[in-house]
Parts: sequence; structure tokens; C-alpha cells
Amino acid sequence: MAPFWRNLAGMTDPAPPARLHLRLFLGDGAMLGPGKAELLERIRDTGSISAAGRDMGMSYKRAWMLVEEMNAAFREPLVTRSRGGQGGGGARVTEAGLTMIRLYRSIEETTLREGAEDIRALSAMLRDIAAQK
Amino acid sequence: MAPFWRNLAGMTDPAPPARLHLRLFLGDGAMLGPGKAELLERIRDTGSISAAGRDMGMSYKRAWMLVEEMNAAFREPLVTRSRGGQGGGGARVTEAGLTMIRLYRSIEETTLREGAEDIRALSAMLRDIAAQK
Repeated sequence: MAPFWRNLAGMTDPAPPARLHLRLFLGDGAMLGPGKAELLERIRDTGSISAAGRDMGMSYKRAWMLVEEMNAAFREPLVTRSRGGQGGGGARVTEAGLTMIRLYRSIEETTLREGAEDIRALSAMLRDIAAQK
Repeated sequence: MAPFWRNLAGMTDPAPPARLHLRLFLGDGAMLGPGKAELLERIRDTGSISAAGRDMGMSYKRAWMLVEEMNAAFREPLVTRSRGGQGGGGARVTEAGLTMIRLYRSIEETTLREGAEDIRALSAMLRDIAAQK
């Protein structure tokens, strides 16, 4: 299962489900795509920027840069860091961060649900899928 | 106007409109994104793979490779080439190609229309937009 992708739920035909990458350009250059959304979800689940980045195959520097970029773009920080404590300080996804994740995944789900007919029509035009029928 | 992006029609607030990159992974590895869709539209409009690629800042080789990739993925070719004639042979987008463009743009429009509420909510969380209010 590719972590960046979302499956098209409820697809009943034997064709492999469609997957989606959604990249939103909001306002003056703020960009929100599958990488940032997944990073935030993994920070939420692990409580650690380095662990989240490592799980996605990115360096700590890269993961931290993406978090800084998100925190700078949003009014409220999406991730906060606590220093000290167990493991030398962890990271926490804020309420704003959880809202961002929810909205991003909701837009993806809307696309797959409301665009299902068009996506099926596109899939039906493909060579491999035609060969399975 | 960034050619890869689609504006959110009907947005009435003063915030800059959201733009979208949609990348679909269909079936066994066939990928359809904003680059291929725009290339096809430009071939349709110019009748030339090289002119279409040039308009997008890509080499003829790259444009041709993308066309080959699309033609290989779909049951019917999306682009056909005619040799000879004026200009030494042009390119034509087939009915299948026009259908592909229509479906891809339709999925984009569906996302922006049906996801508008979520997109607005995300935009409202951004620092720059908040500063304009």
C-alpha cells in the first residue's frame, strides 16, 4: 500500500483502484500536498519529527524544513515541540494541525467520491484494464 | 496565469483563489497529471508536438516521450502524427485524446466545486489571508 495514495473506496469492478495525489496552492504561495499531509499524520502518530521523517525516507533536516514551512504559512502553528522530557523532546500536532489533516483528506475523499464516474471512464480507456475484461 | 493551474470559479471573497494540481494513478501504473493534460490541450490547439512542448518549456524529446507514454497506456492512441504536408507533418489529438482531456478537467472542476467549503476553510487558516481581513 503506497502511503501517499488514497484508494477509491466502493469501487466494485475488478480494475485496480484509482489513487490520487492532490496538491493545493492556497493564497500567496502556500502549498499543501500529500507529503506534508502524511508527515503531519506521522508526527501525530509518533510524537516525533525525526521518526515521522524517517518513516517516509526523508532526512530530519527535510522533515523539519517542511514543518517550519507549514508553521510559517499558517496563522497558528501546526506542530509544536517540547524540549526535554523522555527522548529529549518530542513534537505534537496542534488542534490547527489536526484540522488541516482532516480538511486535506476530506478534499481527497470528495474528489474520489464525486469524481468516481469520470475516474471510472478514464480507467476504462486504459489498455491494461481493457485486457482484463 | 500559471498554465498548470485551474482557478476556483465563483470564489467571491478577496482571498486569492485556490489552485489545484491533480495527479491520478490509474490501473497498473498509468499516471495522468497536469503536465500531460496541458500538453494534450496544446497539441490540440497547435497541431504540433514540438510547438506544444516549446510553449511549456520542454524539449521536443520530452514532449514526444510523454505522448508515447500516453499512447502506450491507452487502448486507442491519444495523439496521431501525419507525415509530410505543410510544415513536414503535424500531430492531431484523437477523439480518445479529447475525451481524456474532458474527463481530466472535469475531475479537477469537481474537486474545486465540491471541495470548495473545505478549501475555503483551509485558506482561512493561512497567515497571509488572515492578515488581509
